[in-house]
Parts: sequence; structure tokens; C-alpha cells
Amino acid sequence: VTGFFSAHPDDNPEKAGSRGAGVALSDGVRVTVRRGGREQTTEGRGESAAATVSAAVTLNGERTTVEPVADVLTALDIDETAVSVTAETPLPVGAGFGVSGAVALGVALAANDVFACGRSENELVTVAHCAEVEAGTGLGDVVAQARGGLPIRLEPGAPGHGSMDGIPARTRVEYVTFGELSTADVLGGDTTTLTEAGERALDRLLEEPTAERFVSLSSRFAREAGLLTDSVESAIEDVRACGGEASMAMLGETVFALGTGLSDAGYDPVVCDVHPAGASLVGAE
Amino acid sequence: VTGFFSAHPDDNPEKAGSRGAGVALSDGVRVTVRRGGREQTTEGRGESAAATVSAAVTLNGERTTVEPVADVLTALDIDETAVSVTAETPLPVGAGFGVSGAVALGVALAANDVFACGRSENELVTVAHCAEVEAGTGLGDVVAQARGGLPIRLEPGAPGHGSMDGIPARTRVEYVTFGELSTADVLGGDTTTLTEAGERALDRLLEEPTAERFVSLSSRFAREAGLLTDSVESAIEDVRACGGEASMAMLGETVFALGTGLSDAGYDPVVCDVHPAGASLVGAE
Repeated sequence: VTGFFSAHPDDNPEKAGSRGAGVALSDGVRVTVRRGGREQTTEGRGESAAATVSAAVTLNGERTTVEPVADVLTALDIDETAVSVTAETPLPVGAGFGVSGAVALGVALAANDVFACGRSENELVTVAHCAEVEAGTGLGDVVAQARGGLPIRLEPGAPGHGSMDGIPARTRVEYVTFGELSTADVLGGDTTTLTEAGERALDRLLEEPTAERFVSLSSRFAREAGLLTDSVESAIEDVRACGGEASMAMLGETVFALGTGLSDAGYDPVVCDVHPAGASLVGAE
Repeated sequence: VTGFFSAHPDDNPEKAGSRGAGVALSDGVRVTVRRGGREQTTEGRGESAAATVSAAVTLNGERTTVEPVADVLTALDIDETAVSVTAETPLPVGAGFGVSGAVALGVALAANDVFACGRSENELVTVAHCAEVEAGTGLGDVVAQARGGLPIRLEPGAPGHGSMDGIPARTRVEYVTFGELSTADVLGGDTTTLTEAGERALDRLLEEPTAERFVSLSSRFAREAGLLTDSVESAIEDVRACGGEASMAMLGETVFALGTGLSDAGYDPVVCDVHPAGASLVGAE
């Protein structure tokens, strides 16, 4: 979950990205890559079916398309039709949890392992970051998800271009989701006001990088950037009325709070934790 | 555990460090920082006892001194006599597991939390890295331990100076320890041959950053750098005779292998895993 950010587009996707801060949640995405997509999908369907399902991902049991995945496989010189990708997540899609970036990063790590591509972690993060930027589904999710903890994006871009720091904290995280927002629509519009607000928030966070300050700066950012919806605004107000701080996930109609902020305000949130590691291989089947 | 490295001293400890590669083990060090060292230690002992125990660490129940700890506390403006530090670890001390660096890093993270110092993760890693370099107990352990996984140190130094990558792998790790070696003695001697061997190993690892290649390059490095002891050399040979690869922890009389290399060769190793997160806060008591 990103709390605040400034947008830094660039013709070179390795240099494009965002500055800002967020939380890597223990609720994540588990991605499995298997050899043999074509064999499975063409069986009983004829060769023409292969093109239809190429770069398809089975997400929580349903066939769908995760835009950056095709680019990740191409960058790793893997034939899209020779691979099957499944992903499982408890997170809602399109609600500001960066699921597309997480799937892209998971595919990069897992495919490198299955197909023995011999890439380093920085190279795999770069591949997933560029695919996400090109797809327009995110600007800085991937580098944050790769790092884990409460990542601060000091400078935008993939490893070697961007730079990261972190807020040293371990805390319970609560969230409720009211609906979806399109990241591509927001990033495709005028981001001047948003970026100015994001830069201010980052400067103030770096003065004192604590989890509490991160949430209150995120909340101010969401208001200044004009991104609050009615549902999100009233939930944030409810948490504040109970002495807590909450903010909005960038970009989705989702409210997150640290500690018991949403519970205290009478909501029935999903509860998770900060994930200290970020994305990593889990192992072979 | 560092497998191979090159030494890059510098008058500025933030720039000093090493290049190389290693493994962050799931067997680590758990550090607890409490307020109130002076009150505890002076009770019934008189004021003069405070100086004696300042910057003392209780490591696995025994009072000892971990050299970088005093510098870490000073850098965080914490009065040494106002704090008590305990550390628990299953790892042997002085055997190449970087326990002193891990304690320094753990104290930095925990003390920042207890005393609300408001530092970022990069700042805390820098504090611990500089303290370790000044003490001469290590050159690159801290930045590797902060990162987790199988860290590659591309460029030496603290965050903002050095740069890191990683080998994308998750594997079982086995180790046996035969005795101690003094890191300070090796780093204080002529490191020309060692550094040339370390630079060669890093270049070759970056061509194909896999876990297997890391271990075999580490083994060659240990030989080229003239660091092998008889016990270590014969254990590495035994593992190789069984089709595995093992190498030596830098710097200790310790042999590590990935997978079941040491078990297969008839040793009774300690078994652990790669730690994907590296150092992080666990929580308040």
C-alpha cells in the first residue's frame, strides 16, 4: 500500500517511477510459474487457443490478464505460450494494493528460477518495474514490494537509478475496501498538484521517519491531491474521532490504519502485519 | 556468512567496506534494549560500577563486551549507562557469523525504537556499519545483514555510498564450526591477494548469480586468499567428494554448504535456512 507519492514519468522506464512511502503488507500475492502452458491449454482446444490464453494468469482460480506479465516474460526471453502462471491473494484487485505489480514481480522471481535465467534480484526487480511502468498500472509499487517493511522511495526508478530507505517499525495494519479506482486514469491525468503534495509529504517524513507520521502525512496528501472519495473521507474521520490515524491506499477506495484504528472506530477491518522481507522465493513445488 | 570479499578501507567509515557476497542465515541474533542500565547496575554496587559495565552486553546470559555497541549508542545520543542490552543467539561467536555486526545493528534498531530517536533505516544501518568498521570487527557484515537473502555487495560502504544486489534463491544451509579466527587480524594484515581474489569472484558471480556458483566461487576464493585451515579444507573436500559444494565463512573456522552437502558427507551440521528479510524489529516486550 502506498500512502503518498509524487509521479516522475520518464521515456526510459528504468528511470520512471515515483517518490513516496508505503507499507508492505503480510497479506500478499503467492505466484506459481510452471513450464508447459501450451501443452495444457491447447489440449482439446486446438492450436488457436494458445494465442488467446498467452500471458493469461489464473488469479484466485479465475482466468484473467495481468498486463505487465507478458512484458516480464518477454524480457526474460521466455515464450509466453510455454508457461502457466497462477496467483493466489486475499487482497482485493484494483483497490490500491498493487496486485498487478506484485504478480509481475512474483512472475519475474519464479520464472527466473524455473527457467534458470540466471538474473540477479536487481535485474528481476528492474524487469518487473519496467513492465509495470509500461503497462501504466503503477509507478513505484514494484521497488517497494521488493524491499518490504515500510519503504520510502527517496528517488524514482529501478535499482541503479532509484534509491530507497525505510521507516524502522513493525506494526499491526488494518484495512477496509469500499471499491476500485483506476491507477491508469489518475496517472494519465494532470499530476501536478498530486506531485507537489507528495514532495511536501516526503520532505516532512524524512524529518522524522516514524509510522505514525507516515499515516498522518498520507492522510493530508490524499486530501491535498483531491483523491478522497466520500466513503474514504468518512472512514478516516471516524478513525480520527477515536484518536487514531488512517489514510487512503494509492490508488483504490481503501482505508488503512496502523494498530487498531479502524477496529476502535467500529469498522470490521481485515487485519495483517508489516511484511519485513518483501518479495522472495518460497521454494519449488 | 560472507563467502568471499574484497577489502576497501577508507578514512571515512561510511565509505569504507567490502565488495563480495554471502548468505543471511535464519539463525540470527535477537537483541533486546531496555532503559535503565544505570539504575540496575548501580544498585548495591556503588556509582563506580556504572563505568565498568557501560556498553556491556549480556550475550546468551554472560556479561561481555561487543566492541561496536558503545559507538552505536554514542551516535544515537544515548547515554551508555542508561541502557541495558541483552542478546541471544544460537551462533558461535568469532567463527565467521558476524555476530558483532548483528548485535550492533540490533542495538541500533532497538534503541531507536525504545528511545524514539526518529532515525530512518538507512541512518541506523549507517550507524551500525560505521561502528563495526571503526572497531575493526567487520567491513561489510552490517549492510548484508540489513538486506537479508543472499546479498551481493556491488560497491562498498553504508547506504548512500555502497550498493547492493542479491542472488534470487531460497535454500537450506548447513554449517559446522571448528574454531575461531580473528577478523581484525586478517583485515589488519596485507589484504592485496585476498582483495584480488575477491574481485575476481565477484566478477564471475555477476555473470551468473546463482547460489551454486556463489558457493563454488567462495571455495576458490578461500583457497586463493590463503585462508583455509586444515579442518576447513578437509571438510570442503569431503563435501566435494560427495558431489556437493561447501566453503568457508569469512572469517572463522566454519564450513557452510547449501542443501544437504555436509550431511551427505557424514558431518552432523547445524541446519538453517536463508533469512529473506534481514534485520528487523520484532516488537516491544
